[in-house]
Amino acid sequence: MSKAIFYHAGCPVCVSAEQDILNLIPSDQVEIIHLGNDNSKIENAKNSGVKSVPALVLANGNVLHINFGASIEDLK
Amino acid sequence: MSKAIFYHAGCPVCVSAEQDILNLIPSDQVEIIHLGNDNSKIENAKNSGVKSVPALVLANGNVLHINFGASIEDLK
Repeated sequence: MSKAIFYHAGCPVCVSAEQDILNLIPSDQVEIIHLGNDNSKIENAKNSGVKSVPALVLANGNVLHINFGASIEDLK
Repeated sequence: MSKAIFYHAGCPVCVSAEQDILNLIPSDQVEIIHLGNDNSKIENAKNSGVKSVPALVLANGNVLHINFGASIEDLK
């Protein structure tokens, strides 16, 4: 995995964090996945260690949970 | 305020997040403050809206609480 992945679910906390993250990280280094629109990716996110959204899974595998929008268990 | 400020307290969660954040953000755009070593800054952090560390206070005033190391109330 060479890019970071930013998982979110469209909640206000997520959208605010998304804008902030995209201001910090060059857009070609991060992929944005909206789990509300694409719930087939929820299992991928969980397997990466994502427990809540918004979360940023880094290229090195570390997960940064940023603020708290929703538990990943509540997205199914 | 033109730079982001990354507040931490030296805990393992903080140090891990610090390394990750510094990989993402150019180092000239972020100031690092260790509240464990410099507790005179705790009030500044609280006034910026920091509730736990590690946290990143952005130039636009938004606060990103990243994972959870310690409550700011526990640092005094």
